[in-house]
Amino acid sequence: MDFVLHKKDAFSKARAGEISTDHGKIETPVFMPVGTVGSVKGIHVRDLEQEVRARIILGNTYHLYLRPGIDVLRKAGGLHKFNSWDKPILTDSGGFQVFSLSHRRKLKEEGAEFQSHIDGSKHVFTPENVVDIQRVIGADIIMAFDECPPGDSDFNYAKKSMELTHRWLLRGIERFDSTEPLYDYGQTFFPIVQGAGFPDLRRQSAEFIANQNREGNAIGGLAVGEPEEVMYKMIQVVNEILPEDKPRYLMGVGTPANILEAISLGVDMFDCVMPTRNGRNGMLFTSKGIINIRNEKWKYDFSPIDPDGNSAFDLIYSKAYLRHLFIAGEMLGPQIASIHNLSFYMWLVDEARRQINQGTFFDWKEQMVKQLKVRL
Amino acid sequence: MDFVLHKKDAFSKARAGEISTDHGKIETPVFMPVGTVGSVKGIHVRDLEQEVRARIILGNTYHLYLRPGIDVLRKAGGLHKFNSWDKPILTDSGGFQVFSLSHRRKLKEEGAEFQSHIDGSKHVFTPENVVDIQRVIGADIIMAFDECPPGDSDFNYAKKSMELTHRWLLRGIERFDSTEPLYDYGQTFFPIVQGAGFPDLRRQSAEFIANQNREGNAIGGLAVGEPEEVMYKMIQVVNEILPEDKPRYLMGVGTPANILEAISLGVDMFDCVMPTRNGRNGMLFTSKGIINIRNEKWKYDFSPIDPDGNSAFDLIYSKAYLRHLFIAGEMLGPQIASIHNLSFYMWLVDEARRQINQGTFFDWKEQMVKQLKVRL
Ligand SMILES: [Zn+2]
Ligand SMILES: [Zn+2]
Repeated sequence: MDFVLHKKDAFSKARAGEISTDHGKIETPVFMPVGTVGSVKGIHVRDLEQEVRARIILGNTYHLYLRPGIDVLRKAGGLHKFNSWDKPILTDSGGFQVFSLSHRRKLKEEGAEFQSHIDGSKHVFTPENVVDIQRVIGADIIMAFDECPPGDSDFNYAKKSMELTHRWLLRGIERFDSTEPLYDYGQTFFPIVQGAGFPDLRRQSAEFIANQNREGNAIGGLAVGEPEEVMYKMIQVVNEILPEDKPRYLMGVGTPANILEAISLGVDMFDCVMPTRNGRNGMLFTSKGIINIRNEKWKYDFSPIDPDGNSAFDLIYSKAYLRHLFIAGEMLGPQIASIHNLSFYMWLVDEARRQINQGTFFDWKEQMVKQLKVRL
Repeated sequence: MDFVLHKKDAFSKARAGEISTDHGKIETPVFMPVGTVGSVKGIHVRDLEQEVRARIILGNTYHLYLRPGIDVLRKAGGLHKFNSWDKPILTDSGGFQVFSLSHRRKLKEEGAEFQSHIDGSKHVFTPENVVDIQRVIGADIIMAFDECPPGDSDFNYAKKSMELTHRWLLRGIERFDSTEPLYDYGQTFFPIVQGAGFPDLRRQSAEFIANQNREGNAIGGLAVGEPEEVMYKMIQVVNEILPEDKPRYLMGVGTPANILEAISLGVDMFDCVMPTRNGRNGMLFTSKGIINIRNEKWKYDFSPIDPDGNSAFDLIYSKAYLRHLFIAGEMLGPQIASIHNLSFYMWLVDEARRQINQGTFFDWKEQMVKQLKVRL
């Protein structure tokens, strides 16, 4: 994997760059749609490419490990072959889902024991085997196994958790560096900064992570319930330490405004279930603000879903029709809203990159952050 | 509306023809995907056109009348504008749904009183107002209001029901002929043959219907629980009487084999929820037979969903992937299966037409009917 910085904003820490992988280039800043179990919910892979214009998607190791399972993915020749997505894939390490979804989990030095939320079967994730699993999935970017402490953790818990994550990181790196890709393309490994809402811990973690000198670095454990100002402060503290010449990935964030603020703090990569999950509930993000499409006010609004939208579906369908689909419980409603929201998120990061390149990012961001929160 | 017969099969009653409407031509035999509430469930209108290659779709008057409602459809300028489907639309009259879905329905000479299955609100359908409603929906083909008696009706009930349907037909025709289309294209009106499983009643009804001399005729009240042989017998009896130079529409039928048999008995048009409903449950129809995609046997089958399939999705995705989507409860599974099944139904009627045109229909049909029932 390579990363080239094309442009640094003069009025913020925002950057425009380009990641190169064996599955193609990824211009940054970038948003990664979440393809939990190997499909971005409700979206055909062709529409993901042509309408959403996704450049990289994320797969969840926890979900993929349980279903379809590692044997199927190995025999398929990896997730790219299995789900027909031929651009880059990043997989998380499963840590977050083990701690939020699974049952009867037990945290040990060795790793995490847990029971599947689907059938109660018992499993163990370790820093080593989650590397092995992601090797089999065939992710272009493999994430380290970490513990993500709750947003309201006290200092002592956060510190012990961070130290565990660091010890796990060294084991993960050792496994990654002593194994080879299973398929005919390269894989890389990103470590994850933790430290909850404590600047001292975040600094300590960022230094530890930076010292590993991997090809990219991630910031985890944010947007887990803490105030937004705390999140922004942590990103700022961490990005002062993480090397400039490597991509920075902020995990699981967030609203369109969160993304723009984080870009201005020097983040390059994002993922979040919000565009698809909120889309399935009828919430649309647009450059003019937020639409609750179930609202009575759209009943007779036959204008396009989003006249400024980037996907063909934004113009094909009207607000009144999309509202009708949601009110009638038709599955096409969530499908359309999910594509709209993801293509909007892609527009947002693309436009951010254009603004960075032409030196107008900061003012644009300030104005957009206000606009994005308007309720239409 | 016009109908031209291109070719009559020498070894059966099968015909190949072409219907012309202001929304374009429809080559027959044809299958009409069911777009219940204005969307064919789970299928983008663009995929319906380009992948399914649908030539005409069906809308349900009962559903559209309740949601989005007639005021929305009128203000939208009709269903074509509302759902962005610019090819022909046929609407049923709502009779079937009133008698199968609604609550506390009361049948009177005047029409049918019923309560909405959604909110319990009270409504009346009459032979006249269902014409008015279909005028507003803007259907290219409007269906007469009929009563569809249960498959096991006795002779007296079936006779009284048929006679009511005939009286309703005369009222519907009067309303249709004394009103104009609301939009800038023509509409036509099809009467419906009833008579349950009684050849005498079917003959009597077919004569009554044929005498109305409309541009096309429909056969209703079949595939409602009666044995297949009874259904085929009724179609045969009716088609001996319905004029040859007008399209014949068999309502709500059926399996791929049913459709081929009915084509060989001289039917031109079909609709059925089976390809979409069964698709959503993981049942795939193919030219080699039936696939239950949830079956363990597909777990490691990475071959395309249907190598002979007509839609791009048949080749993009594998059986193992589609199975995984169903097992994991991902909505993309039902989406893919629905497109596959509809595009298979379209292939089936297209291939029937080609076989009719080249004079090989009957042998092909005999062989296919066996093949289509094979469990893969
Ligand atoms: Zn998120
Ligand atoms: Zn049917």
